Amino acid sequence: MLTIYSDDHRLHHAQGEMVGGEFQPCFEMPARADHVLARVQAQQLGEIRAPQDFGLAPIARIHSADYLEFLQKAWAGWAAQGNSADFLPGVFPARHMRAKRPDDLYGQYGFHSFDCFAPITAGTWQAVYTSAQVALTAQREVATGARSAFALCRPPGHHASSDVMGGYCYLNNVAIAAQAFLDQGAARVAILDVDYHHGNGTQSIFYERADVFVANIHGSPSFEYPHFLGYADETGAGAGEGYNLNLPLAAGSAWDVWGAALDSACQRIADYAPDVVLVSLGVDTYKDDPISSFKLDSPDYLRMGQRIAALGKPTLFVMEGGYAVAEIGINAVNVLEGFQGA
Amino acid sequence: MLTIYSDDHRLHHAQGEMVGGEFQPCFEMPARADHVLARVQAQQLGEIRAPQDFGLAPIARIHSADYLEFLQKAWAGWAAQGNSADFLPGVFPARHMRAKRPDDLYGQYGFHSFDCFAPITAGTWQAVYTSAQVALTAQREVATGARSAFALCRPPGHHASSDVMGGYCYLNNVAIAAQAFLDQGAARVAILDVDYHHGNGTQSIFYERADVFVANIHGSPSFEYPHFLGYADETGAGAGEGYNLNLPLAAGSAWDVWGAALDSACQRIADYAPDVVLVSLGVDTYKDDPISSFKLDSPDYLRMGQRIAALGKPTLFVMEGGYAVAEIGINAVNVLEGFQGA
Repeated sequence: MLTIYSDDHRLHHAQGEMVGGEFQPCFEMPARADHVLARVQAQQLGEIRAPQDFGLAPIARIHSADYLEFLQKAWAGWAAQGNSADFLPGVFPARHMRAKRPDDLYGQYGFHSFDCFAPITAGTWQAVYTSAQVALTAQREVATGARSAFALCRPPGHHASSDVMGGYCYLNNVAIAAQAFLDQGAARVAILDVDYHHGNGTQSIFYERADVFVANIHGSPSFEYPHFLGYADETGAGAGEGYNLNLPLAAGSAWDVWGAALDSACQRIADYAPDVVLVSLGVDTYKDDPISSFKLDSPDYLRMGQRIAALGKPTLFVMEGGYAVAEIGINAVNVLEGFQGA
Repeated sequence: MLTIYSDDHRLHHAQGEMVGGEFQPCFEMPARADHVLARVQAQQLGEIRAPQDFGLAPIARIHSADYLEFLQKAWAGWAAQGNSADFLPGVFPARHMRAKRPDDLYGQYGFHSFDCFAPITAGTWQAVYTSAQVALTAQREVATGARSAFALCRPPGHHASSDVMGGYCYLNNVAIAAQAFLDQGAARVAILDVDYHHGNGTQSIFYERADVFVANIHGSPSFEYPHFLGYADETGAGAGEGYNLNLPLAAGSAWDVWGAALDSACQRIADYAPDVVLVSLGVDTYKDDPISSFKLDSPDYLRMGQRIAALGKPTLFVMEGGYAVAEIGINAVNVLEGFQGA
């Protein structure tokens, strides 16, 4: 399986985040991608190639113009105000307020965020732009006939909606790739999000559309991040009614429960008969992940890849979360090896 | 003029807040109330009395049951999770998400917040409960015949809506007092918010009601906190249409502009013919305030008090913001002295 990767991800290395009321090093760090890349190499998964540059146009198919403008200008504006620490939002258009975009940079950041976990640093725009190009390059590989490809994206993307960032995510790589398949002639694509956290951005982007079926298996928002989306009764709206599937699971879920949910999701995807499957590949379902509660073990990820392969569809894997840094490579590549060997 | 004050405000002393991307000491600190109290004493403004306890019932007239439940239980739950640092929210129900209250404490905090500037500490509930009782005790004084009274509230309240905290505010003291006037027989009350920051909570609480006229003079949300409410086109809704007045001003506004806005607000209040006037008394309009941009000087606060006195109405002053700590006492008490001497 071809892997697309770029060192540009290192340009995004944020200083910290609030955990337990303390400002601590970010769980989302460059070492994550390093571990996955090292495992791809160690297991000889296949060729590793740098991304092509498809420009902003395929990104602008998913994200709004004012959102992209903010992402591109935010660091320069923040630095021009005399700041050197990472830029973080702090005020948000909540209930009883207006979702009107302010003129000032700090207000705009809150307007375009749902949490305090998508810091902007000097290199963030270049890193997220390249991450989207990584997804698009792998997408092109599958669109032109490969059985599968792996987009080793970092930063991840599935929490980002059309104009709201959060959860370490800025550009929704899997959504951008899904739209590219459609724009290149596919009639239907399916996205299977196996990250521990609900892919709220991906869901919201395609919620009213029938040409993208989105399935999520995740910790229930009743107790888990992102807290405000991902319930089972969210089944799509308008033309998209019936094309969104959420399988929220209880804390502590292990493979017996998780694998059954995967069977359900795969059955629905098979019924949908997509031209291609995109997998939002988060491995924070692992039993030792520091910010998650599921209990999958490393061999389970081989099974996950095998089950996805049984769909028999061209498949694009897009890296999302996973924070047990030492094991993230083993688990992510286990999914790919399970798929490839099936 | 009678001042109501309690040392309980010291029970709320948060560790810090994010400013310029760095975690720094909070601008909203106990010394603020100390400086105001010292100036009340030095100027011999009048008697200083401790608050009575009117219980939760008058607070529950403004705030929702689940919000009050969260405020009361939050610290104990946070500490039970093994945390000792201040509790802060980090994830919010933004656009493309659902405003559904989660079951977990951290999710509930985001559900009940619009920013990261209302930390919860071990003593927060007692401090905010007492702050509301300070307002209610001063309210009772005016309701029973005094020309005026001063509620030296801390924490402040005007950013808190029925079920959303933020901006150092938890319980909306001025709204609670306004409702108490109505519940005790007043037909119409007016709230004049002179704090530099728009009183978004107060506006939202009374936005669809005709029995409370709310006027705000403040830095425009187009560039200033709270960013997402306070525009001139917000004039009330439903039965409240026409009973909300926003006078957003440009950065750098001094008394010439500010005083003219005060004249406009007072004219509208006079037209409304309220039984009583409540003043949300923030003095962060001061030229040296560290987080604001207006240019009022200390003598301007005497004029402010005189203009409010010219309304000829029983008047309750409720302390809100103001962060130039050394001068906050002089400026706040100048308003009261200007009123009293007029």
